[in-house]
Amino acid sequence: MTEPDRAVVGVCQLDGVAARQDPSVVRDAVARAAALGARLIVLPELTACGGVFTRPEEARAVAEPVDGPTVRLLSELSAQHSCVVVAGLAEQGDRGQVHNTAVVVDSGSLVATYRKAHLWGAETNAFEPGGQPPPVVSTSAGRVGIMVCYDLEFPEWVRLAVEGGAEVIAVPANWPLRDEGDPQRPFEVVKAQAAAVTYRVNVAVADRCGADAGVDWYGGSLVCDVDGTLLAGPACARDGGPGGATPAVLVAEVDLAAARDKRLGPFNDALADRRAELYA
Amino acid sequence: MTEPDRAVVGVCQLDGVAARQDPSVVRDAVARAAALGARLIVLPELTACGGVFTRPEEARAVAEPVDGPTVRLLSELSAQHSCVVVAGLAEQGDRGQVHNTAVVVDSGSLVATYRKAHLWGAETNAFEPGGQPPPVVSTSAGRVGIMVCYDLEFPEWVRLAVEGGAEVIAVPANWPLRDEGDPQRPFEVVKAQAAAVTYRVNVAVADRCGADAGVDWYGGSLVCDVDGTLLAGPACARDGGPGGATPAVLVAEVDLAAARDKRLGPFNDALADRRAELYA
Repeated sequence: MTEPDRAVVGVCQLDGVAARQDPSVVRDAVARAAALGARLIVLPELTACGGVFTRPEEARAVAEPVDGPTVRLLSELSAQHSCVVVAGLAEQGDRGQVHNTAVVVDSGSLVATYRKAHLWGAETNAFEPGGQPPPVVSTSAGRVGIMVCYDLEFPEWVRLAVEGGAEVIAVPANWPLRDEGDPQRPFEVVKAQAAAVTYRVNVAVADRCGADAGVDWYGGSLVCDVDGTLLAGPACARDGGPGGATPAVLVAEVDLAAARDKRLGPFNDALADRRAELYA
Repeated sequence: MTEPDRAVVGVCQLDGVAARQDPSVVRDAVARAAALGARLIVLPELTACGGVFTRPEEARAVAEPVDGPTVRLLSELSAQHSCVVVAGLAEQGDRGQVHNTAVVVDSGSLVATYRKAHLWGAETNAFEPGGQPPPVVSTSAGRVGIMVCYDLEFPEWVRLAVEGGAEVIAVPANWPLRDEGDPQRPFEVVKAQAAAVTYRVNVAVADRCGADAGVDWYGGSLVCDVDGTLLAGPACARDGGPGGATPAVLVAEVDLAAARDKRLGPFNDALADRRAELYA
């Protein structure tokens, strides 16, 4: 397979309540992104079940295996639209535990599974964290690294994906609306931009919007290039701002070849300039 | 000494040509910052010599020891204004090598020296990189971590300073104006914000402005709090934008106590949430 130099990426921002109540919400969002040309389509964390989980039994109630209904639906959609889909689900583990998982389906088949390693808030009580680094998958839309929400805030996690060859990092996320920082560009967005430019990798985040289980979601879905420039989003900028965001599909073409080149002018290199021997 | 909970920080943006030609430029900037209440005052990288160095002999021509004229001037100013000053100089090494060094003077005395570990551009040919982590110094204006310019773009370096107890990181910088990214918030600013909020530390950057040796300088001096919010700067926003920036003194009060608390709500912690065992 010749490596593609560019790919159109779509991020689908969904309302969690709506997605939980009606599977056509996911179906329609993927169809819309595909119609806009997206070959890599990212959906929010815990795509179909939405919600806020604070106890193991809550997570177990919606958990499913990675050959369950969510992955079957995503596989069908990826085959129908000849695209790669990255989405989240509550994954039923083999000892009764539940993981906050992201899956990658490409042209009808499940090609990767990743369990969120850095848990946020009360979900710490509901999910068991993963212990494996972010996978990087060669797809028809480039080499895709996968992580979930809070994982993206750890520079080391981004570096591992980049060292694994990721040209774009796909991030299902649920960013809760917070009071701190600049409301128009909250720290999650700043960190996503910094992750991208620090390691010269494209970043695509699909966020949740609306209110669910007493939480307002930021609605900051975005696509960012290797220079840290926002190509699309944050999605809430189109609407009533953070917390006033509505469901959205954002599409942008990213430069995969640029992500394969870590040079910064004639003397520097984003990876080679690291002095890892001094970082212990 | 009781640890202070807050400190007023000043960042002095200087024109390199002017600073090289007239020592009163540094003297006046420090006096102005002190008059505005600053107890920690940061000056640009290579404060007094300015310039762009691409060959060892160019650096050697302006190099001086850490008990030379620059540190004597800074010591005098810090005693006169009862403040801490962080500034840069070309430091003469003991084997003919030159380091791009930052010094900390507190109330008349040199209290720390740091040699830039991550070199940028052609300066790679002129300076020898340091091999020691960023020092953290207990001063009358809080616990101050020190690094120089490009060092700040390495998350691991920021983490080391924070693990060493830094409440504010003082960064003498020379940010060259570049074409990539958002001109109003270039990636250096985004990375400074991300560094601050990722590790819950205040960041103070003193940048250069004007043109010197064929390079236009961004003029992005700033003070950023532990939430990643810009308390002051980037300085160019006051003027004609990037490249049109003028000399400036920006002052902001930072919350040192906030930097001692790494908790993120009831479940999370910016340092404890790291899963270092997975980052190798």
